[in-house]
Amino acid sequence: MKILIVGAHGTIGRAVAAELAQRHEIVTAGRSSGDVQVDITDPQSVAAMFAKAGKLDAVACAAGNVHFGPLATMTREEFEVGLSDKLMGQVQLVLSGREYVAPDGSFTLISGILSTDPIRAGSSATTVNAAIEGFVRAAAIELPQRINAISPTLLDESLDAYGDFFRGFETVPVRRVALAYSKSIEGAQTGQVYRVP
Amino acid sequence: MKILIVGAHGTIGRAVAAELAQRHEIVTAGRSSGDVQVDITDPQSVAAMFAKAGKLDAVACAAGNVHFGPLATMTREEFEVGLSDKLMGQVQLVLSGREYVAPDGSFTLISGILSTDPIRAGSSATTVNAAIEGFVRAAAIELPQRINAISPTLLDESLDAYGDFFRGFETVPVRRVALAYSKSIEGAQTGQVYRVP
Repeated sequence: MKILIVGAHGTIGRAVAAELAQRHEIVTAGRSSGDVQVDITDPQSVAAMFAKAGKLDAVACAAGNVHFGPLATMTREEFEVGLSDKLMGQVQLVLSGREYVAPDGSFTLISGILSTDPIRAGSSATTVNAAIEGFVRAAAIELPQRINAISPTLLDESLDAYGDFFRGFETVPVRRVALAYSKSIEGAQTGQVYRVP
Repeated sequence: MKILIVGAHGTIGRAVAAELAQRHEIVTAGRSSGDVQVDITDPQSVAAMFAKAGKLDAVACAAGNVHFGPLATMTREEFEVGLSDKLMGQVQLVLSGREYVAPDGSFTLISGILSTDPIRAGSSATTVNAAIEGFVRAAAIELPQRINAISPTLLDESLDAYGDFFRGFETVPVRRVALAYSKSIEGAQTGQVYRVP
C-alpha cells in the first residue's frame, strides 16, 4: 500500500510511520517537514498536498491542534481554534482525499480520550474529539473508502508535558497507538473508534 | 423560575413553552418572533438578547440548522453551516449566558438522534450533534450552572417533511421531547444527554 501520514514527524506520526514502513510505501506530510508540506487549516494547502502525493491507498492523520483553557474565561475565538484545525483540518483531508484514495482504501483520523472523559480546561477538546468520532460514524456509511478514528489516552511520552492536565489518567506507550493505526489501515473494519486507553 | 426559550416558535419550542409556562415565567426568543429576536449565528445578536432578557434561571434551546446532503458531493462550506449555526450558536448561548444565568440555574441544548444513528446525507448533522453532546459532557464539569442536551429522534409532527430521510426510524410525539426539557430544567442532573428515541 501507498500510505500518506499527516503529522508524520510528531510523537504519534513517527511511531505510525515506523510501524507501517516495514510493509508499505510511506509518504510523510508535516507543517514544515516531510515529503510534502501541508497546513491542514488551509483547504488549498490540503489540495496541493494530495496533488503532489498522487494516488493513495490510505491516509492516516496524527495532527490537529485545539485550545486548552478554563471554560469560565474561554473566548469564542479560542473555542473555534480546534474546530478549524483538528476538526475541519481532518474533515478536509476526507473532502479533498475522496478522489485520491482508492475505493478499497481508508482514512484514519485522530480524536482522543477527552471525547468521553473530560478534564478541566478541555471543553473545546472534548467537543472537537466527539465531533471527529461522529464524523467517522456517519462518513463510514457513505464513503466507498473505509474510515476510522484512533482515540488515544495520554502517552507515556507526553506525561512530562501534559501530566498536570491529566492527573489520574493511565498512560500508554505510543507503540500501542501505532498498532491501532495498523489495525485501522490493514484491517477491514469501518466506522470504528479504536480507543487506546 | 424565569426561563429563556430560544427557538420558541418551532415545533419543539412551542411544546417546551407550553409545558413550562404552567409553572414558570417564560421569555421567548426566535429569529423573527417572540419577546426577543435573535440570530444565534451572530455573537452580537446573542449578547443583545441576553442584555434584553436580563437575569435568568434557565436557558433552553430548540434551534439550530445543519446542511443535509450526500458526503460524496458536500462542500466544505455546506459542511460548516451546522458548525456555525447549530453548534457554535448553542456554544455561544453558553459563553454569553454564563453571566446571566443564576449559578444554580441551567442550560439545555439540543442535539439529535443522528449523533449515534447516522443516515445518508447526514454526515454534517452527526458531526454537529456529537459535538454538542461532547460540549455538554465537558462544560458540565466546569460551569457553575448545570448543562444537559436533549437528543430527540424524528418527531411524529415532522414525519411528512423528513420521513424520506429517516426510513425505519420510530417517531415520537413532541410532548415527550418537551418532558425531557422539563427533566433537564426542573431536575438536578448535569452533563447528561437525554435521548428521546
